[in-house]
Amino acid sequence: MRYVVTGGAGFIGSNLCDRLLANGHEVVAIDNFSTGQPRFLEGARQQPHFTLVEADLLDLAAVTSSVAGADFVFHLAANADVRHGTEHPRRDLEQNTLATFNVLEAMRAHGISRIGFSSTGSIYGESKVIPTPEDAPFPVQTSLYGASKLACEGLISAYCGGFGFQGWIFRFVSVLGERYTHGHVFDFYKQLLADSARLTVLGNGKQRKSYMYIQDCIDAMLLAVERATAPVNIFNLGFDGYVEVNDSVGWIVETLGLQPQIHHTGGERGWVGDNPFIYLDTARVRALGWEPQVPIQQAIVKTLSWLQENQWVLEVRQ
Amino acid sequence: MRYVVTGGAGFIGSNLCDRLLANGHEVVAIDNFSTGQPRFLEGARQQPHFTLVEADLLDLAAVTSSVAGADFVFHLAANADVRHGTEHPRRDLEQNTLATFNVLEAMRAHGISRIGFSSTGSIYGESKVIPTPEDAPFPVQTSLYGASKLACEGLISAYCGGFGFQGWIFRFVSVLGERYTHGHVFDFYKQLLADSARLTVLGNGKQRKSYMYIQDCIDAMLLAVERATAPVNIFNLGFDGYVEVNDSVGWIVETLGLQPQIHHTGGERGWVGDNPFIYLDTARVRALGWEPQVPIQQAIVKTLSWLQENQWVLEVRQ
Repeated sequence: MRYVVTGGAGFIGSNLCDRLLANGHEVVAIDNFSTGQPRFLEGARQQPHFTLVEADLLDLAAVTSSVAGADFVFHLAANADVRHGTEHPRRDLEQNTLATFNVLEAMRAHGISRIGFSSTGSIYGESKVIPTPEDAPFPVQTSLYGASKLACEGLISAYCGGFGFQGWIFRFVSVLGERYTHGHVFDFYKQLLADSARLTVLGNGKQRKSYMYIQDCIDAMLLAVERATAPVNIFNLGFDGYVEVNDSVGWIVETLGLQPQIHHTGGERGWVGDNPFIYLDTARVRALGWEPQVPIQQAIVKTLSWLQENQWVLEVRQ
Repeated sequence: MRYVVTGGAGFIGSNLCDRLLANGHEVVAIDNFSTGQPRFLEGARQQPHFTLVEADLLDLAAVTSSVAGADFVFHLAANADVRHGTEHPRRDLEQNTLATFNVLEAMRAHGISRIGFSSTGSIYGESKVIPTPEDAPFPVQTSLYGASKLACEGLISAYCGGFGFQGWIFRFVSVLGERYTHGHVFDFYKQLLADSARLTVLGNGKQRKSYMYIQDCIDAMLLAVERATAPVNIFNLGFDGYVEVNDSVGWIVETLGLQPQIHHTGGERGWVGDNPFIYLDTARVRALGWEPQVPIQQAIVKTLSWLQENQWVLEVRQ
């Protein structure tokens, strides 16, 4: 099969490219390198069946020519910055909503109809139902990031209904592991490198969050695409449990052998739109036969180890 | 109060302008006249407190200057064509999603924070819960129109969360009454004017739909804005009942004194994305004290009478 992976130089995208290549597929990665890293594709670029296209998804002509001949498009490119959405509201609209529209139009131009999409658990806003299932009560958006992913999901579903597309929409919790380039482990490690005696934690640290290890995430996506056959297939992906931010802090400082003074900025939420409790019901994807292998604590430690071995990423990702 | 009404020359918009003016308010109508009609504002333009701005909402600078000084924005401008969405997918994206983003940004530039928005019952896709409440299970979109309105709702909610906006989101059933310019009554009447002996009905005619009379709709919006005080206020608006398309056909031909041969194109749905059963639970808005006054049959007959008296609209709206 010939796969296109948008955001192919990103955290999840580059790991997915590697896996698809290892499984014997042809892969075209599209990335504008706004956050993706050329170094993440060093292995992939050694492979004969790999092509890298440097293009921005807002350039419809470029996207259209890049997807030609694909059997399947994994659309993972996104502005994944949920925290700073209010500083640049146009970014989520463009990088997520408009980019997704262009990917769909590019596919339609070539008669390509199968798309996998990285959505987010943030789409549930502050759900009252926890763990939150895919058919939770119609949510109210609390972040521009969530709103833009909601718009993308709507577009994909409408293309399934109107143009005979088939879609696999994955609502992720935060993903951890090798090539992780943003999120709380990144922020905490960076702070501690600069000053090992002090760590600032946004909010009261009691926020409860679920996470998932990158290879578990990829296993789930590939299994779902293989086994779920509806026109629109929506799956929560996450570990069956959650941790407190303070737990995570504890594991990180322990692994690093540090004893910093912890300063909490206070409040239930770390930032505007921060959801103090994210925990998704993953019964639907489990029913397909998937089970996550790496518990959250282990995923955090693996992430930290990778960051320690790849400190260059702390320089390039501000 | 100074109100801005986008889509102010449209069916709902022009009726709302008239009502707001009658209530003693200052009104600025913005319209690009893509579907709005100058004649609908003939009365309003006689009023000293009325201003008409001819502008396209995709022109952010024009929108920004138009909303200056407003206390409240009713954002009603939209591509309201649910049926032909797949013929021009970009239109819903631009006229609905991007236009709404611009309205929000224009408001934010001036520190205006209160917005009323015309969403749609189509946002529920084909809900399994009927009558459908506002917190129905997270829906899957079945039309580009619904998807675009979902995107708008998400944006508005996110601006409420992130920028301190206050939003009133109204999910309408189809609205009927004076200045109605598209929908099944329009289509049927136009067909019968051209050939009174034959009427083509899309689908099997058994589609069940709820409708609402324009003045009931305006009553509900104004009451909700007055009485609902949450940051994000979401209300279904519709009559507490539904009719079959075939019922509607019967009332229309009876009112016109015709006995055409009825040809059904067949199938449960009239078009791709047509929802065969739309009936919204309106308990939430009723709890504020609203009650619709005009039953569906009467609203259909009123609409037809208005079209008979205003045949010019059949010429200008193809």
